Amino acid sequence: MEQKPEQHTLSGRRSQKDDTSGREHLLDTAILLFSDRGIANTTIAQIAKAGKVTSAMVHYWFDTREKLYDAVVAERLGPLIQAIWEPADLENESAIQVIRGLLTRMFEVTDSAPWLPSLWLREIVQVGGLLRERLLRRIPRDRSIAFRQKIVEAQSRGEVNPKIEPDLLFTSMVAQVMLPQATSSCVWDENNITMSLGREQIQRHAVALLMRGLEGPVIRSEELNGEHQ
Amino acid sequence: MEQKPEQHTLSGRRSQKDDTSGREHLLDTAILLFSDRGIANTTIAQIAKAGKVTSAMVHYWFDTREKLYDAVVAERLGPLIQAIWEPADLENESAIQVIRGLLTRMFEVTDSAPWLPSLWLREIVQVGGLLRERLLRRIPRDRSIAFRQKIVEAQSRGEVNPKIEPDLLFTSMVAQVMLPQATSSCVWDENNITMSLGREQIQRHAVALLMRGLEGPVIRSEELNGEHQ
Repeated sequence: MEQKPEQHTLSGRRSQKDDTSGREHLLDTAILLFSDRGIANTTIAQIAKAGKVTSAMVHYWFDTREKLYDAVVAERLGPLIQAIWEPADLENESAIQVIRGLLTRMFEVTDSAPWLPSLWLREIVQVGGLLRERLLRRIPRDRSIAFRQKIVEAQSRGEVNPKIEPDLLFTSMVAQVMLPQATSSCVWDENNITMSLGREQIQRHAVALLMRGLEGPVIRSEELNGEHQ
Repeated sequence: MEQKPEQHTLSGRRSQKDDTSGREHLLDTAILLFSDRGIANTTIAQIAKAGKVTSAMVHYWFDTREKLYDAVVAERLGPLIQAIWEPADLENESAIQVIRGLLTRMFEVTDSAPWLPSLWLREIVQVGGLLRERLLRRIPRDRSIAFRQKIVEAQSRGEVNPKIEPDLLFTSMVAQVMLPQATSSCVWDENNITMSLGREQIQRHAVALLMRGLEGPVIRSEELNGEHQ
């Protein structure tokens, strides 16, 4: 990768950044554009311009659009997924501890990758999203199966709400982390309610809602007051 | 609207469906395509073909693309929003009752409009979604303000989890209704966990999670066993 791209020297500007740091920078540039406007609305020329290189340089580093998507998933999204799942101790932690850990790390990951919520909404969660299939293949299969099993067992012991659907839980968690961060600044603006919720507020809300629900503390403080339905 | 489109007769086929039922059918056809592939990926020619009319006929009924979007929001999405909000009795119901009612009606609405979750994900929730701004203007402002106020008051009385963020609650509710219905059939397939969750399972999960949370019933059944953190 240290060699100059002979076949591109006619059209590609030979810059001093012809080492892999140029490639890393270009990958980050592409991700920001993908997150901001969607992959289908981003041309190679736009990536090149934002990265201050020629289009030929983009092709040199990533060959095809498909391989650029591969690189986004393998080199940027993959490590984030690993950072979320790796520390989970599915053997020794309780189901609730595992879930809290996953949630905490999902939020930490959005700190280090603030482009993630929007990219998730545009290209991952959506059927037909251009990174979706690539990313689903990277979710550690053994861990997600063990996670599901852990939830089922915790439900049978009464440690986790039995009405929760194990197959939907992970999606619900991701949704509560990503969606407000991808859209929060606009949702209520039309109603003139000033909206300046930061990551901490979103995290507190998501964790409270997922762990205890709307009625959670009511039950705790008014234990015998019956249903609020 | 009963008159024939004089300016279009040269190119537009004069069909027997030149009454408003043709227009209604075309609107439904357009919505299915928008929901299925996204608005930006749907051409007028495709709408015409799916509706078995000429492109000129689409232009006759809706004039411009912008006006077609206006019609989708005013004539299809608007009534759904009204069906969700209208029955809420913000004066006499408790906050929890209002929330349960909104959730129930959100699910009912997805029964009558199965295209809604995907359209919401593609064109409404997303910043830059082509129906987003139009729809936000239709959310009844006085009701959403009264709803927020009701949550805040219920929190101060200890009836609603005080850690919930009132400004994020409605988005969280919509997300739990729409997202699994827009994506559920694929999310876990890669892990070979058969995924055939129906609307009822999704509703049970969403209501349980939002109202009681993961730990909800634990607190109820093991009241004094302390935290599961």
